[in-house]
Amino acid sequence: MKVTIPKNLLTEHVSLLERVIPTRSSNPLFTYLGLALSPGVLTLFGTNGEVDLEVRLHLSIEGEGRFLVPAQPFFQLVRSLPGDQVELAFGAELFLSSGSFSTRLSLAPDEGYPELFFPSHEGPSEPYPLQTLLSVEELHRALSHVRYAASNEEYRAIFRGVQLEFSEKGLRSVASDGYRLALYGLAKPQPFTKKAVVPARSVDEMVRVLKAMGEGEVALALGPGILGLATGGLADPPQGQVRMAVRLMEGEFPDYERVIPKEFPLKATFEVEAFREALRRVSVLADRQNHRVDLMFEEGRALLSAEGDYGKGREEIPVRLEGTPLAVAYNARYLLEALSPLSGEASLFLSGPTSPSLLHPLEASASSPGEGYQAVVVPLRV
Amino acid sequence: MKVTIPKNLLTEHVSLLERVIPTRSSNPLFTYLGLALSPGVLTLFGTNGEVDLEVRLHLSIEGEGRFLVPAQPFFQLVRSLPGDQVELAFGAELFLSSGSFSTRLSLAPDEGYPELFFPSHEGPSEPYPLQTLLSVEELHRALSHVRYAASNEEYRAIFRGVQLEFSEKGLRSVASDGYRLALYGLAKPQPFTKKAVVPARSVDEMVRVLKAMGEGEVALALGPGILGLATGGLADPPQGQVRMAVRLMEGEFPDYERVIPKEFPLKATFEVEAFREALRRVSVLADRQNHRVDLMFEEGRALLSAEGDYGKGREEIPVRLEGTPLAVAYNARYLLEALSPLSGEASLFLSGPTSPSLLHPLEASASSPGEGYQAVVVPLRV
Repeated sequence: MKVTIPKNLLTEHVSLLERVIPTRSSNPLFTYLGLALSPGVLTLFGTNGEVDLEVRLHLSIEGEGRFLVPAQPFFQLVRSLPGDQVELAFGAELFLSSGSFSTRLSLAPDEGYPELFFPSHEGPSEPYPLQTLLSVEELHRALSHVRYAASNEEYRAIFRGVQLEFSEKGLRSVASDGYRLALYGLAKPQPFTKKAVVPARSVDEMVRVLKAMGEGEVALALGPGILGLATGGLADPPQGQVRMAVRLMEGEFPDYERVIPKEFPLKATFEVEAFREALRRVSVLADRQNHRVDLMFEEGRALLSAEGDYGKGREEIPVRLEGTPLAVAYNARYLLEALSPLSGEASLFLSGPTSPSLLHPLEASASSPGEGYQAVVVPLRV
Repeated sequence: MKVTIPKNLLTEHVSLLERVIPTRSSNPLFTYLGLALSPGVLTLFGTNGEVDLEVRLHLSIEGEGRFLVPAQPFFQLVRSLPGDQVELAFGAELFLSSGSFSTRLSLAPDEGYPELFFPSHEGPSEPYPLQTLLSVEELHRALSHVRYAASNEEYRAIFRGVQLEFSEKGLRSVASDGYRLALYGLAKPQPFTKKAVVPARSVDEMVRVLKAMGEGEVALALGPGILGLATGGLADPPQGQVRMAVRLMEGEFPDYERVIPKEFPLKATFEVEAFREALRRVSVLADRQNHRVDLMFEEGRALLSAEGDYGKGREEIPVRLEGTPLAVAYNARYLLEALSPLSGEASLFLSGPTSPSLLHPLEASASSPGEGYQAVVVPLRV
């Protein structure tokens, strides 16, 4: 059983698997990289028990079989091989050669290795009865914009995930830790109505894999306790088909709609980059407990100030105001994180000095409600 | 008391102090950055108790005084100030402003802050009776080439330092952990005969500071239990004068000359980069205990091989041999570290399959003995 792969093709796709496959695990088989050979297709696969990933490459293959190689030395070697081509020959061991280098790697018997179920890009399949097609870039934005707001606390387990809401109105992603909330809406009707909560760490892997996918469409599929991704079919010349499955969390978010404010006596619009930089500087002086930064909105400007053990800091930035000037204080970290997905101009909608504020990118404030990114940040009590 | 400093000048020199001044210390005053104002000179200084550092800048100054500011917020702020100029005004607090940003930082009383003694670039001074002038680049090479070989083990305390040997023959730096040895010789007669052992961690700081100094001459000065560095006088337009002092270790290295082999039945010359890459690949397969890689020298080539739990690896690289072919095994990590300061071509001088080998850059093998870099690596017993 033999296959020859261009080194660049192998390194590029192996790097996707490298972060999923653990270096240590209570199940030692999880530390192995799977390689499956079938006519015309080499499949690389791995799992950490939470996230399963496979990459299928269209290559000329001799023979059929499924093999587990120790992932760590394989990854280390593949990165630094001297030749442009890598030859893999499977027998009792894997014989790998490239340029003047050759190695024999021991193989593990694959008894006990879990069977991995991935969705099909072509349509619903077992165990994924629900399926929708999305642009890779849209799904990437929906996940990456809200991820920061997920909780790290043990005691609010459900908030340690990102909720995906599929409905005829569209797809919405939501994350919260109970103190702040981030939402991203895609106004594209979905073929089913369902909520699914993905662990935040698995969201990180999805974001990474979607980023590597670049452009095109991706099938997003749901089944009992599982969510899957699949890019389109195999390309020739080879380019990997990537499929992914992540375990879902049980339960769903409590009703969060009621904390989203609807009326705003003040709207402040500013350059995100200038605001972020000023906020960072001023927050250096903030107390280390609640990172409090005071914002005083006045005609044409916002005055940022903070005071802590080291002293006081202040800075003014230009803003465009609509409404009644007011003063408010935030945890600078929360506000900086809410700004983190943004660039260009943004608007902060203030419902009052102690009630939740809403942050939007400028373009979104004009478009339909529920579209794009929104963040809810709660002011600190004065 | 006021001074205005170009932001770039301040950030560049503050970054030198940033690594020395600790974020936490059993002496809380060590977490402060010192600023001393005197006519025409602003001095920034700091210490961690082992390494003292000061930078003097030629600037127009109003008033005189010595102030301690909390280093962490100062460093954080200085990096991100919005203006091109930074104004510092000292009173009961430090008032710092730059562009639209301003801050008041609390100051600490400097009672209890240690007095720092630095050498003078102009010649011997208290407490530095011995002094020599070296090129910044030469001293940087002498320290950075041997640092890797210093020990991390507690029980051989003296080997956790780098020994500097001053004599009429020149300056030599030596590091060892008892298993390998690195030397760097400068064939430039020194005005005194002395050995001094600098803790390896202080050597790291010296290397970093010398790198930032770039070119030119540096005074290296010795006193009881202390070693100091000083660059030339103040420049106008401003450029920092940097001075440094490090505590020395007590004692000196045991005689290491006897482990340096003198006769070699085999000399192997190779491209460092190709050898290093092959060694890295093959060593992925080496056992994790002693990282053993076997080298078989044959006419025109070296065959590298390793075997461990994961399997076996082998690779051939071209070498030029002079002498009798032989086989030898090394700890791959030690050999890789010995190669780390090198590029271009190098020669490995083998005294036998179980006796120490000597590694030289190719150019050094031709020049006078004791000049440049040499590493002693001991083969593993077969």
